[in-house]
Amino acid sequence: MKIGIAQINSDVGDFPKNAKRIMQAYRACVDAGADIVVTPELSLVGYPPRDLVTKTTFVEKCLQALDYLADETGDVPLIVGYIDYHDFVQPGKPFRNAAAFLHQGRIRRKVWKTLLPSYDMFDEHKHFEPADHCKPFVYNGVKIGITIGEDIWLDDFIRRPLYHRDPASELVESGADLLINISAAPFYKGSPMKRSNLLEVLACGAKTPIIYCNAVGMNEQLVFDGNSLILDESGNEIANLPGFKACYKVVDLDTKGNGAPKPRSKDIKDINDALELGIKDYVKKTGFSSACMILKGDIESSVVACLAVKALGKESVKALVIAEHDGDISKSEQRAVELAETLGIEFKRVSTDLIKQSADRAISEIMEDSSHPLVDEGLASRIRSMLLMAYARENHFLMLSSANRSDLSIGHEVVGGDSSNGLGVLGDVPKIFVHKLANYLNIENEFIPKEFIAEQEELSRKAHKHGKEVAPPYILLDLILELYIDYQQSGEDIINGHGYDEPTVRWIQRKVDLNEWKRQQAAPTIRVTSKAFGMSRRMPMIQSFVD
Amino acid sequence: MKIGIAQINSDVGDFPKNAKRIMQAYRACVDAGADIVVTPELSLVGYPPRDLVTKTTFVEKCLQALDYLADETGDVPLIVGYIDYHDFVQPGKPFRNAAAFLHQGRIRRKVWKTLLPSYDMFDEHKHFEPADHCKPFVYNGVKIGITIGEDIWLDDFIRRPLYHRDPASELVESGADLLINISAAPFYKGSPMKRSNLLEVLACGAKTPIIYCNAVGMNEQLVFDGNSLILDESGNEIANLPGFKACYKVVDLDTKGNGAPKPRSKDIKDINDALELGIKDYVKKTGFSSACMILKGDIESSVVACLAVKALGKESVKALVIAEHDGDISKSEQRAVELAETLGIEFKRVSTDLIKQSADRAISEIMEDSSHPLVDEGLASRIRSMLLMAYARENHFLMLSSANRSDLSIGHEVVGGDSSNGLGVLGDVPKIFVHKLANYLNIENEFIPKEFIAEQEELSRKAHKHGKEVAPPYILLDLILELYIDYQQSGEDIINGHGYDEPTVRWIQRKVDLNEWKRQQAAPTIRVTSKAFGMSRRMPMIQSFVD
Repeated sequence: MKIGIAQINSDVGDFPKNAKRIMQAYRACVDAGADIVVTPELSLVGYPPRDLVTKTTFVEKCLQALDYLADETGDVPLIVGYIDYHDFVQPGKPFRNAAAFLHQGRIRRKVWKTLLPSYDMFDEHKHFEPADHCKPFVYNGVKIGITIGEDIWLDDFIRRPLYHRDPASELVESGADLLINISAAPFYKGSPMKRSNLLEVLACGAKTPIIYCNAVGMNEQLVFDGNSLILDESGNEIANLPGFKACYKVVDLDTKGNGAPKPRSKDIKDINDALELGIKDYVKKTGFSSACMILKGDIESSVVACLAVKALGKESVKALVIAEHDGDISKSEQRAVELAETLGIEFKRVSTDLIKQSADRAISEIMEDSSHPLVDEGLASRIRSMLLMAYARENHFLMLSSANRSDLSIGHEVVGGDSSNGLGVLGDVPKIFVHKLANYLNIENEFIPKEFIAEQEELSRKAHKHGKEVAPPYILLDLILELYIDYQQSGEDIINGHGYDEPTVRWIQRKVDLNEWKRQQAAPTIRVTSKAFGMSRRMPMIQSFVD
Repeated sequence: MKIGIAQINSDVGDFPKNAKRIMQAYRACVDAGADIVVTPELSLVGYPPRDLVTKTTFVEKCLQALDYLADETGDVPLIVGYIDYHDFVQPGKPFRNAAAFLHQGRIRRKVWKTLLPSYDMFDEHKHFEPADHCKPFVYNGVKIGITIGEDIWLDDFIRRPLYHRDPASELVESGADLLINISAAPFYKGSPMKRSNLLEVLACGAKTPIIYCNAVGMNEQLVFDGNSLILDESGNEIANLPGFKACYKVVDLDTKGNGAPKPRSKDIKDINDALELGIKDYVKKTGFSSACMILKGDIESSVVACLAVKALGKESVKALVIAEHDGDISKSEQRAVELAETLGIEFKRVSTDLIKQSADRAISEIMEDSSHPLVDEGLASRIRSMLLMAYARENHFLMLSSANRSDLSIGHEVVGGDSSNGLGVLGDVPKIFVHKLANYLNIENEFIPKEFIAEQEELSRKAHKHGKEVAPPYILLDLILELYIDYQQSGEDIINGHGYDEPTVRWIQRKVDLNEWKRQQAAPTIRVTSKAFGMSRRMPMIQSFVD
């Protein structure tokens, strides 16, 4: 049997466009000899639809689009992810996260998702009713078991035993000899590898081949990374699809896999690819054609500019370079100009001195003596942002902001300033990874001066000043932040279990806890860590717990 | 039996403080002759704790605090809402939303919540495992059935039959002769009345008295309104507690209720009280002692100033009055100054002319000809906000912003400007309700000139300009927004079912859909409608569905 796998990049709620994409991929797979074509979870809907599903005609229109797809399906069956109604009279949530098996103009089979994740960024319990049984069905002599997303996630691969059911086992016990999983699994550092391991264990346990079809593209701060896989019944990889790319592949299931699954690509390449795809999709899906940003000659805005050019092309990236002081050009301004020239992007220089002076004068009218060291910094950031916003609005550009995750964690960024508006490209990238990205982006061509990156890396080993405060070295900060945020360890554990300095840990912890309000007003970002702020980590803004 | 009901205002995650509050209320009730004391859902934890519960020591510390409370409990039992562990080995969510019956130094009984809401702003399925049985227990000869929050919400009072279980019926069938519900029910316009109706229907059906104890205070944009009730077995009200006030009351259950439940207070008073309590709690719980704002002489900032003075006292409210044009004082500036003087709050006048001029000059460097009508408006708003932020930071004041819900709905406010930062007091108050609030605030004393309010009401009957756009009259806008947002009707339904003008409806719908990104960066607000943006209405930021 030849399997066509199509990694679709769906737009949330755009049924006509998604149906068209599915049909194009279907026809291409059929032409390439596929006996069956598989598309991702909610491929017709776009994941995650969130509360859109509650709109009165949403599911109705989804079902109309499904009927259209069924009409267009010939002798080769097509598996599509969509949303169906649950029973109107029976108690329970109103909808189903569903898969349809379309064949010869008809919907032959409907399957509901059984395990509905409601942890991390997932809210599926809010809208969907789970399946109450899982049965395989026979097509062409093969007993096919279809599962959706979470349905195949074994206890060992999630934090704790969460579910009372195990759909994959139920299907295998009912005699399934092929497992198909359609998925919309968001990327985070290490997740493709983790998934590959899971699928290997699953195939070995089930003793059946597994077809895993994952979505691709960015929706709602999540990047779906594709990396679809086909494994044989011993868990060997028969084929894999590329990461971060909408594409299809037709694979002969009778091929035997050769050895263990290939390792997935490396973290830093994955992060680069996720951010590139994120920028591209965000700009396109919000209806913009160009993006603009402030180039400051710092490492963050330099990395964002390189990523943006890779994602959008140099013609579609515009920059403002802020000449903060009249007279001689500063080193950072010079770096900004050189980068813009190297990348070949259009940029304009603008001085903010006069605005700053008049703002200072106004402030002196309302405060006798401004002694707060952050007032100045806040002003500069807000003035930059104000100019960028005027520029963006006038020209219909999307704004890219460049605050990194480490600074957002401890509140060292300015609400209404550099961390606001448009897309926060590095909002989930820790400082140390910003350096790694800079080096990675330099591989092809030295966009960012190597000595400058080295200098920044050196600086990240030292404490740095922010206003009157002294913050710990980024290299230490990022380690402690990872323990505190990603691994959710308590301050006490980090101090006693890992031996970190108590005042440093307590300072960081307090900063993270107190600055939730700032993060909740920051620009949307692109998730690349296991615990992104906002969607994955939903802390109360105001709370008093210290652990 | 005499019931002590204590409406506790809990701080999220502050176990020592919450335990102290509970103990104080308990002792007061005992002194007043209570035979049993009831506190709200999660009274020891603060609702909603969100992902705080996943912190490694959170539940451990909660249980320590519960032990402390048990130790302090004497012959009069105390019912406390807290979080417990679910089984460590059994599959399921790790925690329980729980109630403890404390008596004579011990935890006599633990009850788990059965129906876990995961709609609207509720996410309880994310963390909690539901109870698998509901049994009453005997205390002092009375068979008591304890339920938590959602457990008593009958199908008729929620949008559709959501649950497969009905804890209240299970308890009644097992012979319960008293139902106690501990709750943390957030306020929205009309919710106290709806709850009162529900409880009446429930008591009549169960033929038992009902004790309903609700939380009070603001946490995470939600205001819990108290309004606890005791009904006899015929659904008659025996006693009620005030709305929006932390307090306790001891009530003799053997008193018969006299007739139907009293109507709860009127919408506009409730909204006023919710906003007042919201401001007060937000300022206090974020650790500020004063708030500052910009007084513009418009109806929104005037209403916010009045509410802030009622909530915090005039000494704790500071204002900036922007003199936008040199020379003669404008009417709105004069109104701002008069209001500040009437309220007796400290204010400073500051001119933004020079900043605006220098910003215009900088902008002319980057754009040949700024033709976008909103660039100017955006600049003015951001300059105001920038000054306020400097002022707030220097003096450690919390900022209050005053954008209303109608403008936020259609994106007619400025990110990084007036809609940002601090607390968005009117972010969930539609324009027409802002007028009603202004009149309500004027009842005691004419703070806001009556003619001005009348003039504004008159204007809200006319189309208004925003940049080059003409927006529909607010009075029409608010009606259509309510249908589209609160009742989730489709554009088609609003046009064909309600007969509204198609271009107007489509314009509004498009504005609402396109401006989700702005709202997601707006300041946190105080929920007063049934579908507040953000917590209750979680739409994708980028989506293409039009209904």
